[in-house]
Amino acid sequence: MTKAALAALALATTATALPLAAQQLKPEAQIHLRQSTMALIGYNFGILAAMAQDKRPYDKAEAERAAEIIPHLAALPGRFFGEGTESGGHTKAKPEIWKNMDDFKKKLEHMQNEVAMLPKAAGDLATLKKQVDETGKACKSCHDDYKAK
Amino acid sequence: MTKAALAALALATTATALPLAAQQLKPEAQIHLRQSTMALIGYNFGILAAMAQDKRPYDKAEAERAAEIIPHLAALPGRFFGEGTESGGHTKAKPEIWKNMDDFKKKLEHMQNEVAMLPKAAGDLATLKKQVDETGKACKSCHDDYKAK
Repeated sequence: MTKAALAALALATTATALPLAAQQLKPEAQIHLRQSTMALIGYNFGILAAMAQDKRPYDKAEAERAAEIIPHLAALPGRFFGEGTESGGHTKAKPEIWKNMDDFKKKLEHMQNEVAMLPKAAGDLATLKKQVDETGKACKSCHDDYKAK
Repeated sequence: MTKAALAALALATTATALPLAAQQLKPEAQIHLRQSTMALIGYNFGILAAMAQDKRPYDKAEAERAAEIIPHLAALPGRFFGEGTESGGHTKAKPEIWKNMDDFKKKLEHMQNEVAMLPKAAGDLATLKKQVDETGKACKSCHDDYKAK
């Protein structure tokens, strides 16, 4: 690893995104990363939902792009609800998450299973509409219980 | 689209991640999304760099996971440097970006070309080390000119 790469790493990572194993990340870094992840899921799913609602013209390439990143993002948030991340920052995560971690993980897994079907669905608007609907239900099911308004 | 999906969308998206075309996003939403994107690139590239520096044991599955999300993320920040996003929030983006947009886009594209090679490289540690190094140079080249310390 050259000095350039090390310097780039220092620049690329911030105080809140340390180059360490997830379990070694400080609570505030985990909160920042889970919020970053949710913001990008929201951005990309928002594009698909707008197409599904006919509020935005269907664009196959953009639908596939948005659909393809979501499963990669959806694999991440489970890493960032570690010990000590119940509070701090401006988290909307409810304390119930840590009281019902098994149920929370089950709902997270259900969401991951639904978003895994988005990339294939994105190639056809009628199929996309159905899969956006199913995915939306999975999001809502978890947010209803575990995300503050 | 059912009510459930609409409600989920409202929950999934935040005030700073509207379900609209990128060009319609408010400046503060764009800043939030570009910072979210960079934080996740930093997190995932940090994992690869730690393996490349022998600071973390090489784990093929985790290296491939981290490498595969990065090109999807790298496609995004170019959308979030629109008009009015030069200031506001706590952006470290330098005003030089908007003065030299062609050069900025060229450097962004160079970075995208380098990260496109990470997924294949991640399957072998020696190859990964080389590609992390090249990618790090591309990150640094842009950050040196366009990101405040």
